[in-house]
Amino acid sequence: MMYKEEIIKVHQRIIPYIHKTPVLTSRLINKMIGAEIFFKCENFQKMGAFKMRGATNAIMQLSKEQSSKGVVTHSSGNFAQALSLAAQQLNVKAFIVMPSTAPQVKKDAVKEYQGEIIECFPSLEAREQTAKAIQKEKRATFIHPSNDLDVILGQATAAKELLEYQPDLAYLFAPIGGGGLISGTILSATAFGNNCKVIGGEPFEADDAYRSLQSGEIESNKSTNTIADGLKTTLGDINFPIIQQGIEKIIRVTENEIIDAMHIIWERLKIIAEPSSAVALAALIKEKSAYHNKKVGIIISGGNVDLSQFFNAMRK
Amino acid sequence: MMYKEEIIKVHQRIIPYIHKTPVLTSRLINKMIGAEIFFKCENFQKMGAFKMRGATNAIMQLSKEQSSKGVVTHSSGNFAQALSLAAQQLNVKAFIVMPSTAPQVKKDAVKEYQGEIIECFPSLEAREQTAKAIQKEKRATFIHPSNDLDVILGQATAAKELLEYQPDLAYLFAPIGGGGLISGTILSATAFGNNCKVIGGEPFEADDAYRSLQSGEIESNKSTNTIADGLKTTLGDINFPIIQQGIEKIIRVTENEIIDAMHIIWERLKIIAEPSSAVALAALIKEKSAYHNKKVGIIISGGNVDLSQFFNAMRK
Repeated sequence: MMYKEEIIKVHQRIIPYIHKTPVLTSRLINKMIGAEIFFKCENFQKMGAFKMRGATNAIMQLSKEQSSKGVVTHSSGNFAQALSLAAQQLNVKAFIVMPSTAPQVKKDAVKEYQGEIIECFPSLEAREQTAKAIQKEKRATFIHPSNDLDVILGQATAAKELLEYQPDLAYLFAPIGGGGLISGTILSATAFGNNCKVIGGEPFEADDAYRSLQSGEIESNKSTNTIADGLKTTLGDINFPIIQQGIEKIIRVTENEIIDAMHIIWERLKIIAEPSSAVALAALIKEKSAYHNKKVGIIISGGNVDLSQFFNAMRK
Repeated sequence: MMYKEEIIKVHQRIIPYIHKTPVLTSRLINKMIGAEIFFKCENFQKMGAFKMRGATNAIMQLSKEQSSKGVVTHSSGNFAQALSLAAQQLNVKAFIVMPSTAPQVKKDAVKEYQGEIIECFPSLEAREQTAKAIQKEKRATFIHPSNDLDVILGQATAAKELLEYQPDLAYLFAPIGGGGLISGTILSATAFGNNCKVIGGEPFEADDAYRSLQSGEIESNKSTNTIADGLKTTLGDINFPIIQQGIEKIIRVTENEIIDAMHIIWERLKIIAEPSSAVALAALIKEKSAYHNKKVGIIISGGNVDLSQFFNAMRK
């Protein structure tokens, strides 16, 4: 669990390719919750999410031979964009397997960063098979969005930066999706925190991590009817042990609690944050009395929200 | 027109009470427009708009005797909040005259900053009369939201900070409402710019400033059917001569152009900006070929948007 030296090296390695994102605070949110909150704004990260950190580190760890063949992943979300942009910045080819049903706006975002999209049937099985075929045909290296130690160590640099800004955080809150961000956050809290405890936020509608902690095995979600579309994925064998060993607790939140928290972030911080980001604040609000007067860090994971409907409704 | 020393003094005076707001850039917006754009983000200013600067300066210029009696203004928008918070920070009483029809969210915002609301009939005449009555009854000092030199010099500090960040701006764009921001921007461009020209953005639906420049007299708006609700007011005898003398041109934009620009700001910069803020970017986009490869500053005037409807629609 002690990855201090590794995370420092990873951070030095990726710094030229990522943004050191700002930390925001709000007097009114502090008053409302009764704690001193520091928001680490990865919505301002390149391509709009923390995933840029892990993708960049993973590609930079490849051999020259591997780099020349490119990388491949399957994702229709932020990791697709992150791997595409990281690869573009490092002059590596990125193959992105996406379900044919993925929204055009997501496909466009990947193309913008010169990722090559390979469409497949919209099922996990088809995605995995298509990615395997690309690995074989192109000899590209598969990079998993969350269950990969290089990716996890990259994600850890967000919490590292936040702890450099405010070393006395008593708690660090982050959302739990595939487990890459929360496990990286745990590693940095252990390495750089001063007895800093990590709390995960998870939607009731996709509470696989909560149930995994209880059962001691990686659980899946039967349905994932949540607005927090970045949190529908499940844990993996690399990040689950880190989470088991290092997490203080997981707080589950309802869809309306997520929406309320997102409203507060948009209205008070004046920033666009994804629903997944709001899950961490919703978790804090839900049990706020336990964090009274504490210094609390929250990782705002990203800001990629499709706003078309909202703005189209305004047009005449 | 040379207010350099005054603006420097004003800035030093108000610095403890305002935020030095960040300057954001976006590679993708630059590519889209073909210019190098620097967004001065007054949406992150205290109470969410540049008006905090002018309100703070105006109150700090009062005598001890005047301060003890309080200040009064009539506004249902950002200046109501700005004067309330500035007064609160400086231990001065603020009386805010608001039309009885003002939305509850605006009244709540003023109360949050301990402004005392006096409701009146929703007409300009009633607002002015009610404010006059308060002046008389409470011996409070009236502070105009935009047609007041101390207010204008306060607003000028936003452009000053932007020019300190990027001294080589060829152009500075700002929206035109009551004329306080644009005239302050002109004074700072003259004082601190390197041949920096100021361009105003205005909605076609409230193009009083455009018409005032043409006729040489202060024109009013017959109707103000614009989404940019901060820009419905008209110029005054103090700011109009500054604008006449110092502005390069005014570009008028349609409602859909404002919405498109706002969409770009929210989606690409990941920030909440008011429609009024988007008017300046809309103006630049409209005539972008004239600014090819130039360094251009844009003042994002504020971020107070009522998001209730958007979030209510999400709730189940």
